Amino acid sequence: MNRLLVLELIRKHRPVSRAELSKLAKMSATAIGRIVGDLIEGGLVQETDQFSSGVGRKATMLDIVNHSIISAGVEIDRNVLKIGLVDLDGSILAQVQHSLTPPASQPEPLAGLIAESLSELAESKGLALSKFTGVGIGMPGVMDTASGKAVVSAQLGWSDVPFAPMLQDKLGLPVVLDNDLKVKALGESGTAALSEENKTVLISIGSGVGSAIVIEGKIYRGANNIAGEIGHSTIDPNGKLCECGKRGCLQTYITDLAMLQEANQIKPVASVDELFALMKSGESWAYNIIDRACTYIAITINNVVCTYNPDTIIITGHFIDSHPDILDKVRGKLKEFIWEPFVGTFKLTRSQLGDQAVVIGAAKLALQQYLGNGLQ
Amino acid sequence: MNRLLVLELIRKHRPVSRAELSKLAKMSATAIGRIVGDLIEGGLVQETDQFSSGVGRKATMLDIVNHSIISAGVEIDRNVLKIGLVDLDGSILAQVQHSLTPPASQPEPLAGLIAESLSELAESKGLALSKFTGVGIGMPGVMDTASGKAVVSAQLGWSDVPFAPMLQDKLGLPVVLDNDLKVKALGESGTAALSEENKTVLISIGSGVGSAIVIEGKIYRGANNIAGEIGHSTIDPNGKLCECGKRGCLQTYITDLAMLQEANQIKPVASVDELFALMKSGESWAYNIIDRACTYIAITINNVVCTYNPDTIIITGHFIDSHPDILDKVRGKLKEFIWEPFVGTFKLTRSQLGDQAVVIGAAKLALQQYLGNGLQ
Repeated sequence: MNRLLVLELIRKHRPVSRAELSKLAKMSATAIGRIVGDLIEGGLVQETDQFSSGVGRKATMLDIVNHSIISAGVEIDRNVLKIGLVDLDGSILAQVQHSLTPPASQPEPLAGLIAESLSELAESKGLALSKFTGVGIGMPGVMDTASGKAVVSAQLGWSDVPFAPMLQDKLGLPVVLDNDLKVKALGESGTAALSEENKTVLISIGSGVGSAIVIEGKIYRGANNIAGEIGHSTIDPNGKLCECGKRGCLQTYITDLAMLQEANQIKPVASVDELFALMKSGESWAYNIIDRACTYIAITINNVVCTYNPDTIIITGHFIDSHPDILDKVRGKLKEFIWEPFVGTFKLTRSQLGDQAVVIGAAKLALQQYLGNGLQ
Repeated sequence: MNRLLVLELIRKHRPVSRAELSKLAKMSATAIGRIVGDLIEGGLVQETDQFSSGVGRKATMLDIVNHSIISAGVEIDRNVLKIGLVDLDGSILAQVQHSLTPPASQPEPLAGLIAESLSELAESKGLALSKFTGVGIGMPGVMDTASGKAVVSAQLGWSDVPFAPMLQDKLGLPVVLDNDLKVKALGESGTAALSEENKTVLISIGSGVGSAIVIEGKIYRGANNIAGEIGHSTIDPNGKLCECGKRGCLQTYITDLAMLQEANQIKPVASVDELFALMKSGESWAYNIIDRACTYIAITINNVVCTYNPDTIIITGHFIDSHPDILDKVRGKLKEFIWEPFVGTFKLTRSQLGDQAVVIGAAKLALQQYLGNGLQ
C-alpha cells in the first residue's frame, strides 16, 4: 500500500523531490528512499534534474515514467463484457466491448474470449502484454478474492468457478477477481479522494441495492468479501416479501423492479425512465412511487452514514445517473433523515466515471496487487 | 501496528524463535529482526536460551518481560469513574472506583481526581507511574481522538473539552481519549480474536444503541470517529418520535427506555429486570414487549452483518448481560432475519470482560499509541 501511496503522490505532485515526498507521505526519509529505489528499479519512476520550486536550489526530482505501467480492467456482466487497458493515471488507452449470450458467458469460452481480446488490444497499441502488471476483473456476485474463485453469481449463473486461475493459465499474467461494486468503488474513490485518508462509500441502486466502502485506498471486504450487501438489510419485518424469502428487505423498496411492480398496478410501464416521464407529465401516482423511493434512498444514505461515517458518498445506478432531478430530490429529503451529528460530515455526489468505473477500478486493483506483491 | 502484532505473537507463543515469528506474522526475517530489536531495546522483550521444540537444536528464543509494560485504563460514565492498571496480558493489576456527582464530574476536578488516584494506585503496587506507557480513557459521546477533545458528551454535560491534554499536563504521561463503546470493542476483540485478521463488532443496547467495529486489531473510526452510531439509523419513517427529533430511529425500538415506556402504559414498571420478571411470571403484555425488542435486536444484527460482514459479534448491555434467555431468544429469531449468504459467517457471543471491558480496552489503546509512536 505504501508503494501505491508514494507512486500516486509522485503522479500528483510531479516533479517532486524525495524530501517533499517524505513530508507529503508522512514517512521517514529512509522509508521514502527505499520505496523510491524499488519504484525506480521497477521502471515506474525516473530521476530528473530540476530546480525545486520551494527551496530554489538544484535538487534531484522524481517523475513517473509515462505509460511504463499498464493494467487491464475487465467488467463481466450478464449481457456484456468490457475490456480496457488502463495506465497509471487511470486513463483508458484502449478498450473493446462484446455482447455476451450463452454459451459465450460460460467460464471456459469467456476466459478464451478475454485472453484473445486482450492480446489483440495490446497488439493494436503496440504494447507487450507480458509487461502488463496484471488483469483485474469485476463481476456481480460473491467473489473470493484470495483464491480467485467466483463463489456464486446469480447474474451469470455461475457457482464455485475458479475463474481467476483459469484466465491466469491462459495469459501467464496475474489475475485478480472481485465483486463489481467493490472495484467500482475503488475506481470512483480515486476521483473522490481529497486526501489519502478518505473513506468513500459507493451506493448502487438498480436491479439490486448494494454498497461498498474504500478505506484509505483499500477495498474493505469484511470476513467473506460480502461487506456492504445492504440490499437485504431489513427495514420492516412486516413488509413486502423479498426474492430472498425474507420480508421488508431494503431492496423491496428502491430497486427498479420494486418501482415497476407498483407502477404496473396502475398501468403498464416498461422502464423506470417511462415512470419518470409519467411523473414529469403530472401523474400523481407516478410521483408517489418515485417520492417514496427517494425517501428510502435518503434513509439508506442515513443508515450507511451512521454505520460507516464516510467523508464521501457516491450514489449511482441507471435511474440516478440518468435523471439529475432524483439526486436533488434525495438531497431535499436528507435534511429530514440525517441524524444531526452527521450533518456536514460527508459529500454526496454522483458517479464521475460512469460506465467505465468497473474497468478502471478493476485495473487499479490489479495495479495494487502488483505493487503489493513485489515489482517484477 | 506491526510492533503490537509481534508483541502479541510473542506473548501467545512464548518462548518463540525469530524464525517462527517470521512465519506467524507473515513478515520477512529482516522486518522481524528490526521490530524485535526495538522491543528488546524498549525493555519489553528478552532473549532466553531454550531448545526450540520444532527443530530440536538450540535456538535463541524470545519471551516477554513480565510486568515490563503497564498502561492505565480509565472509564468515565455519568455516575462512575473506574481506573485500572493493566499489563500486557490485559490483566488488571490494581483498580479503584469512585462514584461521580457534580461538581466532581466537571473536567478540571475530574482530571485532578484521576491524576491523584492513578498516583496512589501505582504507589500501592510499588510501580513507577513515569514508566507507564500512557493512559487511555473511554467515555460516552463524540470524542476527537486526534486532538484528545471531548466534542460532546450528553451524559457528562460536556462540550468541546480538551480533556486528554488537560490530564496529560497533570500527569506528564501520554493520554488518549476515545468513545467508550469503541474502546470496549477493542478490549473485547482481544478475547474474541481467533486470528490476527478478525473483524469484531460490538453492539451495545442499554440507554442507547450503538456499535463499534475493530478491524484487524484497530478501531475503525470513520471520518469523524462516529462510525457505528446505529441508534439513529432509520427503521420506519412513520415510526415513533425519537429524542433526536426524527421518527422511527432504531433506538425507539430496543432501548431500556423504549421498553419501559411501553410497559408503563399497562402498569408501573421501574426497570427492565422487573419487566423480565413479569414476563417470566406469565404476563403476556410483558412477553409482547420483550418479544418485539428481540425481533429488532435480530434485525439489528442482520443489518450490521450485511454492512460490516464481521466474523464475530459481541452483544452487550445490562438487559442482555443479566438475562441469558434473551440471547437465546435472539438466536432463535436470527434464523428468520439473517440473509442466507451470511448464515454461518459469524460467531454471536456475549461480553467476555463484563464491566471491566472499557478499562481494559482503554489501556490497550494507550499501549497501541505507545508502540505506534515509538518506544521511549
